[in-house]
This record gives sequence, structure tokens and C-alpha cells, in this order.
Amino acid sequence: MKIAIDAMGGDHAPKEIVLGALKAVETFKSLEITLVGDETKILEYLPDNTASVNILHTDEKITSEDEPVKAVRRKKKASLVLMANEVKEGRADACISAGNTGALMSAGLFVIGRIKGIDRPALSPTLPTVNGEGFLLLDVGANVDAKPQHLMQYGIMGSIYMEKVRQISKPRVGLLNVGTENGKGNDLTKKAFELLDNAPINFVGNVEARDLLEGAADVVVTDGFSGNVALKTIEGTALTLFSMLKDKFMSNTKTKIAAVLAKNELRGLKDQLDYSEYGGAALFGLKAPVIKAHGSSNRQAVFSAIQQTINIVEKEVVMKIESEVKHLPKQGEEQ
Amino acid sequence: MKIAIDAMGGDHAPKEIVLGALKAVETFKSLEITLVGDETKILEYLPDNTASVNILHTDEKITSEDEPVKAVRRKKKASLVLMANEVKEGRADACISAGNTGALMSAGLFVIGRIKGIDRPALSPTLPTVNGEGFLLLDVGANVDAKPQHLMQYGIMGSIYMEKVRQISKPRVGLLNVGTENGKGNDLTKKAFELLDNAPINFVGNVEARDLLEGAADVVVTDGFSGNVALKTIEGTALTLFSMLKDKFMSNTKTKIAAVLAKNELRGLKDQLDYSEYGGAALFGLKAPVIKAHGSSNRQAVFSAIQQTINIVEKEVVMKIESEVKHLPKQGEEQ
Repeated sequence: MKIAIDAMGGDHAPKEIVLGALKAVETFKSLEITLVGDETKILEYLPDNTASVNILHTDEKITSEDEPVKAVRRKKKASLVLMANEVKEGRADACISAGNTGALMSAGLFVIGRIKGIDRPALSPTLPTVNGEGFLLLDVGANVDAKPQHLMQYGIMGSIYMEKVRQISKPRVGLLNVGTENGKGNDLTKKAFELLDNAPINFVGNVEARDLLEGAADVVVTDGFSGNVALKTIEGTALTLFSMLKDKFMSNTKTKIAAVLAKNELRGLKDQLDYSEYGGAALFGLKAPVIKAHGSSNRQAVFSAIQQTINIVEKEVVMKIESEVKHLPKQGEEQ
Repeated sequence: MKIAIDAMGGDHAPKEIVLGALKAVETFKSLEITLVGDETKILEYLPDNTASVNILHTDEKITSEDEPVKAVRRKKKASLVLMANEVKEGRADACISAGNTGALMSAGLFVIGRIKGIDRPALSPTLPTVNGEGFLLLDVGANVDAKPQHLMQYGIMGSIYMEKVRQISKPRVGLLNVGTENGKGNDLTKKAFELLDNAPINFVGNVEARDLLEGAADVVVTDGFSGNVALKTIEGTALTLFSMLKDKFMSNTKTKIAAVLAKNELRGLKDQLDYSEYGGAALFGLKAPVIKAHGSSNRQAVFSAIQQTINIVEKEVVMKIESEVKHLPKQGEEQ
């Protein structure tokens, strides 16, 4: 199996990307990785004799400040674009970047292309739940003006991923909504509810945002705008709480002692909520697996994303999505 | 000043509602309260000689299970409907309920009515921020299919409230969006951005959900669907974290000692996030102040909601909104 990786994307690129890749080829013997980016910088972290890692050199890269669509169109030699091209031309089975999310979505769409029958790809991170199983949230921003049939397609794609890769039998698919009762919601969710209810998935109805971390469903579908709000609200609330908690523990001698006593357990709590453990966010609906690793990925997070990508390739998630949507009745426009 | 209160709404009605009202009339000498509901039950908690509390008796009430619009239309003698009627007929200046939110919105709309120039009322809680100031989020679900001009109107109403009642000079109004850069967002937010940018408010542009609790803006406007998702995600994440934290502290002897040592500070943290401290959620855009107290309100939360309502009445927020929207250029449809 061959995976192309954007060595220049992410806050700790190329160092942590290279070290994560190195760990992966040491762990998975049949894996080959192509690192795309500045050869000199990559070689700083790569031992000479690493046979299963190739470098595709380029000087150009897309930064987090670049406007995604323009950047992908204009910077044709950018590491992220060349990475997608490796997949398009069959020299890699899948690709991973920790760089500009919008640019990765654009490259996925314009270079690799959509699966026939999927109108819009969905960006799909796995978020933590109390029981440690996690849930897949899609979409978190690939498509901010979603239509009902898009949400139905997200349900099918998410269900296939959780079943094949996470090995959850009959994953529970929920629709993010303002109430749990049937008939709740805005125009979009009311129509999507009907479609999801008739889709070949285990649809469990509406779920509310307050029940997400409690594991109300294995797959939660929503439009990219609301999904982005939910994702960032979880992140922001958790970060704010941890920082407030830290302040509380620094208040006085007693609380400082308390902090020392409970140190390991509190660290465990933070790990429990660390969603880089579940790998990156897959961009489902494209002709090959495209994975967005978190921007702040360290080597361990890069390794997790590679492991997840191997799984998606081996379990033939893309092929399964293709064959599933082939049987669907045609819904509205396809753009 | 006269305030009508639904004595039968909320998880702890009528007891905590009556006791909160009692505290209010003891504190604010010129206040008169009409409690609407079951006289016998109310009198259990009301001393005989409470001159400034009147009871408007009714046997009927709307429960949390009732379908809001139908309930308001059919249960014409329900405490919540009679309460709204007190305002409509000029016997009360404002009203408060901790009952069915949807029913309160319906009663507000059908019985009390909209301000001319406001297309849709917005449900507007104040949520906590790290610095203790809090921010006003609107709308959290009164209008789940919002149009750009609705968001602009929310900005104006929220700004007036924060300026008049919370005494924040030139409140910063932000638009909840998927990124902070101009030009980000879905159709709705892109159009709303333009309108907000030209509105007579201190518009500070897009804000992201992850910065809400850090106090990115004093007023955050969004459609009712996304606002509901943000609100419930904050609630859910905080509750989940607190429950995980509790478990961690119960792990072993060391952590149990830590819990005892840090007890006061941890309780302080919870209080800091308790948004009932800021009063209830006002339903802005109606011809009189209508306040939704939290369903789980205890007497202190009811008291806070009453105090907030007095403030809204005294600062003439409704009148200020009326005169402000009169000067706006007409935007699209008005339903």
C-alpha cells in the first residue's frame, strides 16, 4: 500500500510529519510512503536508509493564510496539490495532510474528484464520548449550504466507515437537531429526516447537541455550518474549562497540593477528550481516501492518521460507498 | 410596575416560582406580581398578608410534553396563556415563565404580538464568559429558518439590551460563523454580514464558536438552529466534563483528598458557568418584555429573572427597539 503525505502541512511540519511517517513504516511492513515537500528539510529528520519512504520534492506550499480555492488553482506545485496528484495518477492509494483544511477539500474535489452519486464530500472527524467509543460527526464544514439529500448521503458514508473501520455493527445514525421528537427542526432537517428514515442505515432519529459527548449516536449527520459550530463549541468549551480548572488549582496552597495529588487522573481526563487519538478527519465522498490530520498534529497524531488511512484503504470504504449509492433512488440535483 | 408570572411552569413549580416572587416583592417595594395558576397550590407557599402578590386562578396548564402551537391555541385557560393575556390587556408590563419554551414563544407571538419592523422574535439567553461578563446569544431557537435581515434585527435588539440593561457601552456585536475572515460562511451569514456591517451597531465581524466563552463579542447573532446547537453543545460539554471530573476525583484515596482540598474552588468554577445567574432568556422583538426562565429554575433563578425583567421594563428596551427599527431601510419580506 502506498500513501502520499503532505510533509509541509501543519503547525509542526515537516518534523513531526516525517517522524510520524517513519514510525508508520517501521510498524507496517508493507507500507510505502511518499513525503511531498522540501527535500532538504525532510531529510533533516529522515535516516538515509529508509527504503520505504520516498520524497517528492517541491519548493512550493500552501499556508494556512492562503485562500483555499485560489491557492489550489494557482500553486500547482504546492506540496498539498502534488500529493493529491499522486493519488489521482494512481501512484498512491490515499493521502494525508495536516495543512490548510479548505485547500485539502479543494484539492480533493478538483484533483481527485467525487464518487458518482455523492453530491458533496463531507469532512468527518471522530469526536470523543464518555465511554471512549467516540462518534463520527459529518459534515463539519466541507459544505456549509447542505441540502437534504446531502445529509442522507452523509448518513450512508458515515455508517459504512463506522461499520467497516471501527467495526461497530449496525452503527446508530442520528440527525443533529433542536429537539429529539420527530417533526422538530428547520426546513433542512425536516426533509433530511424523511430521507434518512428511508435510507439503508440504522437511523435512530434526531439527536440534540447536549447529548453528543454522551454517545447519543455512532454517526451524527448535520450541515457543514452547524457541524462546524458544534465541533468548535466542544473544543472551545473544553479548552476554557481546562484553563479555568488550572487557574482554580493555582489559587492557593491547598489547591496546589490537590493538583499534585490528582495529577495523573486529571491528565487522564484530558487524554480522554483528545480526539487526535481517533486519527484525522476523513473527507468522505471522494474517489480515494483523503485524510485531514489536525493542524497541531505531533508524530503520534500523524501516526494515528496513517493507521486510520491504512484501515480505510484495506476495508475498501470508498468502493463500498460507491456500490451503496449506486442503488439509491435519484434525489434532486447533482452538482 | 406589574409583572405577570406563570406559577405552573418549570420543574419546581409552583413552589420555587412562588418563593422567588415573594423574595422579589420583599426586595423591590414598588413591584406588584400576578401569579397565574392553581390558587390552592400557590397559597401553600404564600403568606396570607402578601399584599403585592395577586393570584389569577386557573386549573389548566401547558406541560413540557404539549405541542407548543396547538397547546396555546387549544388550552385558552392555561396559566401561560392567561399570563400573556395580562400583558396584552395592559394589566401587566411584562411576563415570565419557566415552562414550555415553544409555548411561551407562541403565546408571545399570538397573544402579545411583534414589534412593527421586527420580522421574528429571538430567544436570547446570556451565557457565561471567562471574565464573568457574559455574552448575549441570539437566536437560540425561536426561528430555525432565519433570513439575513432577521440576523441584522437580532444585532440591533441585542445591542440595545446590552447597552441599556447590562450598561456596556457600544456592545461588540459578532456574527457566529465558520471562520473569522470576511467572506466566510454559508449563504445566510454572507448576506447577513453585509447587513450587520451597515446597521447602527458596533459590528465586529465574524466570531467562531470556539471563542464564545472567551468573550469574543458581547452580542453574538446567529440563526435559531445554529444558536440552539451552540447553546446545547456548551451545556452538554460542560456537564459531561464536570461528571468526568467527579469520577476522576472518586478514583482513589489520593484524589478524594484532592477533592476535599479543592472543594470550594471547584464549586466556584461551577458557579462561574451557571448562567441562571444572569437571569432568564428574553424573547426580544415582542411588544412587551417576555422572559423565559430556565426550566430547572429554583427561587434564586426566578428572583434573578424578575430582577432582569424589572430592568428591561425600566430601561424601556422595547420602546428603544421600536424607535430604532423605525429608521431602518425596509429589508425583503416581513411575515
